[in-house]
Amino acid sequence: MEKIDGGITAAKGFMASSTRVGLKKNSKNRDMAMIFSSSPAEVAGVFTTNLVKAAPVVWDKKIVDSGNRASVVIINSGIANACTGEKGMKICQETADEAAEFFGMYPENVLICSTGVIGQQIPMNKISEGIKTMGETLWAKRNVALEAAKAIMTTDTVPKESAVTFEIGGKKVSMGGMCKGSGMIHPNMCTMLCFIVTDCAISKALLQKALSDDVQDTFNMISVDGDTSTNDTVLLLANGQAGNPRIEEEGEDYRTFCEALHTVMEDLCKKIAGDGEGCTALFEVKVVHAADKAQARTLAKSVVTSSLTKAAIFGHDANWGRILCAMGYSGADFDPEKTDIWFESEGGSLQIVKDGTATDYSEEEATKILSHPAVTAVCDIKAGEETAVAWGCDLTYDYVKINADYRS
Amino acid sequence: MEKIDGGITAAKGFMASSTRVGLKKNSKNRDMAMIFSSSPAEVAGVFTTNLVKAAPVVWDKKIVDSGNRASVVIINSGIANACTGEKGMKICQETADEAAEFFGMYPENVLICSTGVIGQQIPMNKISEGIKTMGETLWAKRNVALEAAKAIMTTDTVPKESAVTFEIGGKKVSMGGMCKGSGMIHPNMCTMLCFIVTDCAISKALLQKALSDDVQDTFNMISVDGDTSTNDTVLLLANGQAGNPRIEEEGEDYRTFCEALHTVMEDLCKKIAGDGEGCTALFEVKVVHAADKAQARTLAKSVVTSSLTKAAIFGHDANWGRILCAMGYSGADFDPEKTDIWFESEGGSLQIVKDGTATDYSEEEATKILSHPAVTAVCDIKAGEETAVAWGCDLTYDYVKINADYRS
Repeated sequence: MEKIDGGITAAKGFMASSTRVGLKKNSKNRDMAMIFSSSPAEVAGVFTTNLVKAAPVVWDKKIVDSGNRASVVIINSGIANACTGEKGMKICQETADEAAEFFGMYPENVLICSTGVIGQQIPMNKISEGIKTMGETLWAKRNVALEAAKAIMTTDTVPKESAVTFEIGGKKVSMGGMCKGSGMIHPNMCTMLCFIVTDCAISKALLQKALSDDVQDTFNMISVDGDTSTNDTVLLLANGQAGNPRIEEEGEDYRTFCEALHTVMEDLCKKIAGDGEGCTALFEVKVVHAADKAQARTLAKSVVTSSLTKAAIFGHDANWGRILCAMGYSGADFDPEKTDIWFESEGGSLQIVKDGTATDYSEEEATKILSHPAVTAVCDIKAGEETAVAWGCDLTYDYVKINADYRS
Repeated sequence: MEKIDGGITAAKGFMASSTRVGLKKNSKNRDMAMIFSSSPAEVAGVFTTNLVKAAPVVWDKKIVDSGNRASVVIINSGIANACTGEKGMKICQETADEAAEFFGMYPENVLICSTGVIGQQIPMNKISEGIKTMGETLWAKRNVALEAAKAIMTTDTVPKESAVTFEIGGKKVSMGGMCKGSGMIHPNMCTMLCFIVTDCAISKALLQKALSDDVQDTFNMISVDGDTSTNDTVLLLANGQAGNPRIEEEGEDYRTFCEALHTVMEDLCKKIAGDGEGCTALFEVKVVHAADKAQARTLAKSVVTSSLTKAAIFGHDANWGRILCAMGYSGADFDPEKTDIWFESEGGSLQIVKDGTATDYSEEEATKILSHPAVTAVCDIKAGEETAVAWGCDLTYDYVKINADYRS
């Protein structure tokens, strides 16, 4: 497996396009993007568990559940189309109708994603304008992956792309993706959106299984502020253009595919966590020697979402008491008096807790280690062989600033 | 029922004392307090659910579970005695031994509470000094409630007291309390501690039931940052000195007692939430017309703990999308499309959401209402007749500042 460039257009037969139609208030940035597959692709998806689901989430879920293939994804980053009632669903239908008409396909082959302001209605005329502009430029200009990655950003400070190639059955297979997300976040802005495409030939069932399984160790393990958005969506499209023997069972080919998927997903996750709103550091929490996966995940997520721990990371403060405390109220059973804790970064590695109490560590050295842009807390609970990793970021003044500002 | 002064010494036979022994780093404030009952009191208690329990929590829980009466509570606000292993338990035993010897009673009648730095050992010589000083001044000076309330503060900015009198069986009964807590909080500081005393004659069983029931609607409904401390403790002492017919069953007298207890507990809770670290406003979330209590509590707590909502309150931003979103991921089942939301304060009342979508409200008026020091969000889910209220505060720059600072 090899990392490559190309993002969302890295796989054969996938094209992208983007434009600005003015859905973003006070912004000159592009606010619409389109992903197009030259042949209908199998599509897998995972969606927000929030009871409040945005209209496009409902739309896409129906397509994924129905087993329809998809050829187009229409994305806007100005208005979330969440809490918009019947009218919001009507906008999805009209968007799909217009894209279908433009490309000569069925509305059931059109996926739709939105991120942005909650509670506002999308002006359909702007979406129509965007579909037309992006549809036309799609043919003219193929390598627009980076612009597309930028067009789906809201409070993100950097575009997020990832891509790899690997081999299946002697054929070169490629996979690429882009995502956005910086916490739920921004006065009324929200959502993590992720799009991954591959030219691998694989059955719909296994495509969904690979995504659903891997999301447990990747996107379900990141947190910027613990707020689960109304629009969270991860879509995985596979158009089979690589010409590999179609993956129909869970053999070695499937494992190779899953490995590639995990590489792309983990890469994108770290990019989201490391770009958390206002953050100055990527905060990784690794729980090792857990009795089972569930225990490891619960403990890691509890620490990575603790406001006190996140604030301490911002302060470069080796505040291990907060970490042990966050593990304690996580709901997972473990023995605090057997727990060891280390801090790690490019600045070095330091054990600060042994069997639940402080080692004789140097605060100065700890602070030095915690002053790097990516820090890891390793918690060894000595209960078994399972491991889980969670990704988040520090809690800063800027997080408060960004989220306290009036919507305008 | 009538509100009175006197705090922790408001009930007959209860005295308090406090002193400074230097357990608080860089502070000239008092750091030890003592509560004394002239006759052994029935004691009820509720403690942190955190798996990591401080030594004094383990000590007190044993006394409460055993059914022993208590006459003394020894409190320090410098060192939490959490994550201190065997040595921490030994400090509790020695503290109880010395207090018991001083007052001529058994160690099993001595309750102990700590709050402060996690992971450090308490120097016993300072505790001994404190017990002696407080024991001696106890007799000389009876009305020291306010000093005691100040002595248990950590990052609190104001002392927190409450007291009422009421009548049972023709006898005047009094109840008073004090508490501290400002989030889990402060670099390595932690904990909510609450002490309530009454001269009411009531059985141990009903005393515990009254406390355990009421805590569900009071202390379990406040959150400053969602971090459950290792030391959280609420102790309720009843010495029977009011001479009322002892409450042995759940009749009218018991209901009167519970009403008084709720008044004191709710008052103290609001004072804690309103003094949350760095906060500028008390944020109250009221869920009405819920199908059952559990649903109402879950929804109210989810909103009051949402970082995004808290930041919006700081910004005086009527960000209803975040409230509906926080309800959505709470885990409680409800119908977002039936939900109404109001903002209320001394500045007025304004409906901003009807049946899940925005009303045509004025942002200016909403901001005016949200600019008051105490704001309430009322969420009507139209599912039944139950109500729950949760209390928290806004998320501010100062919260980050206080918690990012190096421990020193």
